[in-house]
Amino acid sequence: MNALLRLQSELGDIVSTAPLDLAASRTDKSGWIADGTPLALVRATTVAHVQAVLRIATKCRVPVVTRGAGTGLSGGACGTDGAIVLSVAGLTRILEINADDELAVVEAGVINQHLNDELAKQDLWFAPDPASKAISTVGGNIATNAGGLLCAKYGVTREAVLGLTVVLADGSLLHTGHRTVKGVTGYDLTALLTGSEGTLGVIVEATVRVRALTAGAVATIGAVFDTVTAAAAASAAITAARIRPAVMELIDPVALGLVAAYLGPEGSAGLPLGRGAFLLVQTDGPAALAEAEQAVAVLRAAGGEASLSTDAASGDRLLAIRRAMHPALEQFGRVLIEDVSVPRSRMAEMFAAIAEISARTGIPIPTVAHAGDGNLHPNFVIPRGGEADAAVPDEIWAAADEMFQAALALGGTLTGEHGVGVLKRRWLRDEIGDTSLELQRQLKAVFDPLGLLNPGTMFAA
Amino acid sequence: MNALLRLQSELGDIVSTAPLDLAASRTDKSGWIADGTPLALVRATTVAHVQAVLRIATKCRVPVVTRGAGTGLSGGACGTDGAIVLSVAGLTRILEINADDELAVVEAGVINQHLNDELAKQDLWFAPDPASKAISTVGGNIATNAGGLLCAKYGVTREAVLGLTVVLADGSLLHTGHRTVKGVTGYDLTALLTGSEGTLGVIVEATVRVRALTAGAVATIGAVFDTVTAAAAASAAITAARIRPAVMELIDPVALGLVAAYLGPEGSAGLPLGRGAFLLVQTDGPAALAEAEQAVAVLRAAGGEASLSTDAASGDRLLAIRRAMHPALEQFGRVLIEDVSVPRSRMAEMFAAIAEISARTGIPIPTVAHAGDGNLHPNFVIPRGGEADAAVPDEIWAAADEMFQAALALGGTLTGEHGVGVLKRRWLRDEIGDTSLELQRQLKAVFDPLGLLNPGTMFAA
Repeated sequence: MNALLRLQSELGDIVSTAPLDLAASRTDKSGWIADGTPLALVRATTVAHVQAVLRIATKCRVPVVTRGAGTGLSGGACGTDGAIVLSVAGLTRILEINADDELAVVEAGVINQHLNDELAKQDLWFAPDPASKAISTVGGNIATNAGGLLCAKYGVTREAVLGLTVVLADGSLLHTGHRTVKGVTGYDLTALLTGSEGTLGVIVEATVRVRALTAGAVATIGAVFDTVTAAAAASAAITAARIRPAVMELIDPVALGLVAAYLGPEGSAGLPLGRGAFLLVQTDGPAALAEAEQAVAVLRAAGGEASLSTDAASGDRLLAIRRAMHPALEQFGRVLIEDVSVPRSRMAEMFAAIAEISARTGIPIPTVAHAGDGNLHPNFVIPRGGEADAAVPDEIWAAADEMFQAALALGGTLTGEHGVGVLKRRWLRDEIGDTSLELQRQLKAVFDPLGLLNPGTMFAA
Repeated sequence: MNALLRLQSELGDIVSTAPLDLAASRTDKSGWIADGTPLALVRATTVAHVQAVLRIATKCRVPVVTRGAGTGLSGGACGTDGAIVLSVAGLTRILEINADDELAVVEAGVINQHLNDELAKQDLWFAPDPASKAISTVGGNIATNAGGLLCAKYGVTREAVLGLTVVLADGSLLHTGHRTVKGVTGYDLTALLTGSEGTLGVIVEATVRVRALTAGAVATIGAVFDTVTAAAAASAAITAARIRPAVMELIDPVALGLVAAYLGPEGSAGLPLGRGAFLLVQTDGPAALAEAEQAVAVLRAAGGEASLSTDAASGDRLLAIRRAMHPALEQFGRVLIEDVSVPRSRMAEMFAAIAEISARTGIPIPTVAHAGDGNLHPNFVIPRGGEADAAVPDEIWAAADEMFQAALALGGTLTGEHGVGVLKRRWLRDEIGDTSLELQRQLKAVFDPLGLLNPGTMFAA
């Protein structure tokens, strides 16, 4: 019996071969569309479903692409030709919230925001905060070790994951980690699986660390600088002053011009957005206001025109400037969001490198950065067309290649928080080197000896 | 040419076969002494030395036991019969301190306290804080993913490691991680190697995250409770009140009696130490005093007799009670420090289980806990004797076995921060299960196909 028949006979109507389902499963929020047609989409709602899919896949030697909400930005969960697309978006149970131990146990398909809504009832929250949190899953968050706006202060996803339940390639269950704050028994498989992009196993359940909601008010600052260099220097001065903002976002002049046009004068929150670079700073906690006042002084000393808000409404107007970035770009086409990260002290150099590549190639590269941690998102806007246009034009990859090399030369990385996926696998060796790449391939082979788990993601096939 | 001759001819006088050197390399601070006699002790002072040792070991099929300062508490770095003991204690250079990027690059043999002394000149610090910090190395810290007193607030070692340079079994160099706050390119080998106890490679250099020194005063509270259950409930009430102490240590009645006798009345800091259990709480940061006053109210409401100190001298007197624990026990023999960790909410049950095992077996088990993170150190005191007495008596292992099973039944772990080493390897399977154990052995084989790296540590041979 072939794989499809086995799936259908064991799993019934959670198995779809509807052309629309298969087509939708070939893409993600990066705009990448995988070639060919997947064998089937399986909408698992239990761990047993996931185990059955992996058993059948191993028996029939069929690849499996695991998917959550499909919000990935690197093409890492796109259904490839002949693969079983395994959706875990239907594993939506919050199994436990434990305030005493500051942890939650959730299934992989729980939406990040839904978890936070439930946690908030007990004055708790889950810190990993990808911009997609309203629509992305905890499992996807963990599979990519996702970042977000709050990492400099509150850490990346890995630091919030205590333990995992994972279905291995043969369908067996692996439990990793612990419910304790500390635990060093054996190798840290939890960390190895976090960020493994579906290539080592299928994460079905996670024990995550939660925190007490930060007490106190939030203060928000918007500041405009003449140049991106001045804005980057100002953000470094904030760090040097030992202020630790919850959010610190930098919008470069190219992006800011587009945002200003998109928002119009009424959306400018009283700031001169048409020129220069924009820095958004948000402080929280008991000392939020004092820190914000100190930050304003630092920003003004660094040449910024700064506006401090302590009420929710005007704070939201400042945040809206940052939030307008993506829609402002999307007016002009499909947005390919890159994701380089450099040491904070090299951020101004990275902005300069991007500006130089843009000027030389004639390709606009509007860029926003999580300035507190040196993670830049340079954007390429690709005019929309049919499916045939899903491919990114060669000249954009050439510019991206230069950008990646510049980031590496500055001691940085190809991807701060989106993952390697399909789109960045060709640069993997450039960053990690031959020795590491060879080891990583061997580690994958331990978990996935038949090479069935998300083949083509992270490593070139 | 055999391994010893090769070592001597390539490395000269950093190779010792002096009986005293070999004997000293067979033990660590756990008191464990490995059987037999090592082949040689090599005192590496450069990465090239380490590479040469590994190349020779691989060529000649000789095992290598890597060692830092020898402060381990699980027998994980004790020179075994016929092995090359590779000391990296001589790799002592601090290669970089970068305040802008909040990182330091250090060799493996740098003493934790020395790093912090150098960092303090720039108002920075390295948070991992094992009790041994004055004598233990950063490399040992990382190899065991060491904890300490500050983990509940400031995280474990893994969270402070950004990247590693590792000598692999064949002598080649592996670089992992990055200098950036975020980075998700490939698998997280940095985390996999952190806590790997010398079984995957030899850590020679680390890029570690450093922090701004916590501003503000420190406030210290000592409190005595009638029972350990009441003290554990009080520490839970502190957490429930959303107070986050830097330090929260709980001493049980058995240990407190010994400490009180050791310190005498003049060392009691005015507290009635002769009875009940002791809780030490230290707060830091800008809100230290306010948090401490809130904590005192919580502790008194929970039935404690509490004393708050805000000056250094009286704070030190309270801390001295905790510090007296180890010397108070050592008067009576060699101390075997166990290291179970349970979810915070189960800590009182774990203390009860230890008391029950102690009462039934007649073996005193004085216990101290890092109460903020549920990590208990039950102690066994073994009367001193000659080397023949280095072995832990069977009845103590039987009691320890019951204790480990109790911790696992409470959702805990065998070892919160000391590592598996040799002393706990026989319980590894009980905690992680067959599936994980088999995977972990295969992961080790990827890094160490010949089984030469610290064989017998973590996994039974």
